[in-house]
Amino acid sequence: MKLHLLATALIAGGIAFTAPAHAQPASTNKPHSVTDAKDQIRLTRVTPGYWRVTFHNPPFNIYGPNTMPQLNKVVTAIETDPHVKVVVFDSDVPDFFLTHYDFVPPLTDTTSLPPGPTGLPQLPDMLVRLSKAPVVSIALIRGRATGVGSELALASDMRFASREKAKLSQFEIGAGFAPGGGPAARLPRLMGRGRALEVLMTGSYIDGDLAERYGYVNRALPDAELDAFVDTMARRIASFDKLTLADIKRLVDASSLPTNEQIGAEWEAFLVSVKRQDAQQRIGKLMELGLSTNRDLEKRLDDYTGKLGGSSK
Amino acid sequence: MKLHLLATALIAGGIAFTAPAHAQPASTNKPHSVTDAKDQIRLTRVTPGYWRVTFHNPPFNIYGPNTMPQLNKVVTAIETDPHVKVVVFDSDVPDFFLTHYDFVPPLTDTTSLPPGPTGLPQLPDMLVRLSKAPVVSIALIRGRATGVGSELALASDMRFASREKAKLSQFEIGAGFAPGGGPAARLPRLMGRGRALEVLMTGSYIDGDLAERYGYVNRALPDAELDAFVDTMARRIASFDKLTLADIKRLVDASSLPTNEQIGAEWEAFLVSVKRQDAQQRIGKLMELGLSTNRDLEKRLDDYTGKLGGSSK
Amino acid sequence: MKLHLLATALIAGGIAFTAPAHAQPASTNKPHSVTDAKDQIRLTRVTPGYWRVTFHNPPFNIYGPNTMPQLNKVVTAIETDPHVKVVVFDSDVPDFFLTHYDFVPPLTDTTSLPPGPTGLPQLPDMLVRLSKAPVVSIALIRGRATGVGSELALASDMRFASREKAKLSQFEIGAGFAPGGGPAARLPRLMGRGRALEVLMTGSYIDGDLAERYGYVNRALPDAELDAFVDTMARRIASFDKLTLADIKRLVDASSLPTNEQIGAEWEAFLVSVKRQDAQQRIGKLMELGLSTNRDLEKRLDDYTGKLGGSSK
Repeated sequence: MKLHLLATALIAGGIAFTAPAHAQPASTNKPHSVTDAKDQIRLTRVTPGYWRVTFHNPPFNIYGPNTMPQLNKVVTAIETDPHVKVVVFDSDVPDFFLTHYDFVPPLTDTTSLPPGPTGLPQLPDMLVRLSKAPVVSIALIRGRATGVGSELALASDMRFASREKAKLSQFEIGAGFAPGGGPAARLPRLMGRGRALEVLMTGSYIDGDLAERYGYVNRALPDAELDAFVDTMARRIASFDKLTLADIKRLVDASSLPTNEQIGAEWEAFLVSVKRQDAQQRIGKLMELGLSTNRDLEKRLDDYTGKLGGSSK
Repeated sequence: MKLHLLATALIAGGIAFTAPAHAQPASTNKPHSVTDAKDQIRLTRVTPGYWRVTFHNPPFNIYGPNTMPQLNKVVTAIETDPHVKVVVFDSDVPDFFLTHYDFVPPLTDTTSLPPGPTGLPQLPDMLVRLSKAPVVSIALIRGRATGVGSELALASDMRFASREKAKLSQFEIGAGFAPGGGPAARLPRLMGRGRALEVLMTGSYIDGDLAERYGYVNRALPDAELDAFVDTMARRIASFDKLTLADIKRLVDASSLPTNEQIGAEWEAFLVSVKRQDAQQRIGKLMELGLSTNRDLEKRLDDYTGKLGGSSK
Repeated sequence: MKLHLLATALIAGGIAFTAPAHAQPASTNKPHSVTDAKDQIRLTRVTPGYWRVTFHNPPFNIYGPNTMPQLNKVVTAIETDPHVKVVVFDSDVPDFFLTHYDFVPPLTDTTSLPPGPTGLPQLPDMLVRLSKAPVVSIALIRGRATGVGSELALASDMRFASREKAKLSQFEIGAGFAPGGGPAARLPRLMGRGRALEVLMTGSYIDGDLAERYGYVNRALPDAELDAFVDTMARRIASFDKLTLADIKRLVDASSLPTNEQIGAEWEAFLVSVKRQDAQQRIGKLMELGLSTNRDLEKRLDDYTGKLGGSSK
């Protein structure tokens, strides 16, 4: 696999990642560390009916192969717990809700995982299961939600964003590949084809206000009000009947969810596109610039991808 | 049927409904009176092509078994009249457009009715027929539109709301049961899955501004401008060709309406959920608090349902 | 064919079109001239990956039978060019992006054309092919986009409008017939059924702000910023990989495009409705008032259609 070779080469070769002067020093020789944390997802049972799931993988909340089994465990708990009615996903990492897939480990760390219960590969499997779980899921978005971060928010039932601090995107086209977690199926159902294509074809960040106007999120709230707003809503929902909540979700899903096959097709497109030369070159350049290590790049990912230059085709 | 027994017991036992001090006195021994009016729906033929259908069941425009045949008659007239092109639904009851199903009479008053022409039970049948009638229907929403009131608005072709005075919701989850008139199928098609789930899972009122931002209504207008705006639009549409209006509606419907089966499934979910213990308890508590009689409760239904406490599960 | 006879009669009879005093003089005896221009569509290759297609058929950018082969050529080039990634459609005619079908030439000039590669008649064929081309298409809307102009914008992937100068509509119902280029299938997918029916049933202009609120366009921008905004976005997209852009579009389309049959059904409805007496009378009246020649009418088409009076039915 090309990407594996390329990524491995970059790491093994000890290539110095270049970072702008105003960025944090890049950790050039231990890129794995960003996903080595044991406890990247923290589950808090506020009450038996109301859970918080907090992404905690500083400094950037990157989503890597080590995140996968942890999220899997959480989704399985959400599916099977007899009491939980509402789950809020949030982050305790400043500036980042949950971001892109980690390209430092070889891609085979992910693709070699067995398929999940739906028969889909692990990442789309978990997203599909979350969207169909008999529980109300809410993404509380503060900071950047791109790549998997955006896809997890889209697989959740509702999304509320910080007006000042949220930035959503699907950055993938800027790195030369197609997103793999379902946004091509989910975005048009939320915001219509035109706006979905804008999000997916530009890879640009969408801030809180525009995210609300586009329907990317339910609402953008002043940052100071966001936590209380979501907490109040979650407690209200948690006071209702679990069976009836599940009845209603099932009926809404029948009119609104894409099929598992549509979600699966996006994973296939990701795998095909990420192996193309253009993606390999772009990912390579991004890694040279400090993908996963350069704070400035992680914060302004759309600016960096916009300056990688035209493809050779 | 549990609900029948419970409702009957409440009434037969002469239980005094408790109402907050600032509410109107509850009519404790004649709860049927609110739906006994002979003329709950008034039809005005402004011109042969432009009709107004006015809900008139004071004090709360509750929708009861007696409303059913009257609405049925109106929908049949809309379907078959050779001249009518546009129908505006409005209310002449202050603070209420059209609200929830009446739980005072036994539910069997409704469920024992024969199915309608579509084969669906009477309420979903009428809503489906309205949405497919070869006539343009417009809901002019001033005051509360919840439960059936919201469902009728959603089954109409367009919705315009008073910015100051409209409040839309599907309150049902707060009373422990699933809505039966189609909103789980219709709302995601108007506002996307996330916002639809918010409406349905919280049961909270959505005011005019937010209803417009969410797409729950076409537009919210200043209350002082709403009537003239809708009247002007209705007269404009009524000047056009009935056959072509019907052509266009048929083509739009093919791309936008849920199936009859999807609407029917919601009625089934309503019937199942309303018989559960949680719903029985919640409806019982709401009736004790003055559902159908307590003006404060009818105006702040989402506050009351939010305070009924967690389910026993 | 009635329309042919009627249009021909109007022209042959030398009927003097009446125009308001403040309008340009009507060219009473050479109505064909407005579509006789050889070069109604100008293609500019800004870069190999970024094309501009400019509508240039002054004074009103009316879409006539002569426009058809020129647009066909452009769409075919977009489909087959190995380099183009993004195409921007704009206009260099003040006040008009692209407007209605030209009713001066006999309708058979259009209906006698052979079907296109999709098997659909030429106009819907080209719109369908544009929406499926492996290239990102953007409509930059300044001035009026009605009829075919709105339909081409809707068949494009994204739409950006001048906040001050854009006016979108489907005026057709005001002329007594159903639109033939797909808006009944495309509009509900962008803005929901209620707003789509409002656009189609009123035929009224929707300005930039409302078009954004309804989702008719992605965004409305201040007129002074529109060109730079679209150009920057187009250049960004053109820097990305053509194959991956096509991958993403294909996946989005699977979740968002209507079927070819749905688009084709609208053309059929157009052909049936335009031959009805009501349409013939309305088109006749509009031609008397200066359709295709009277600047005031072309600018305020919705006002004129609203005053044609009720149908005889």
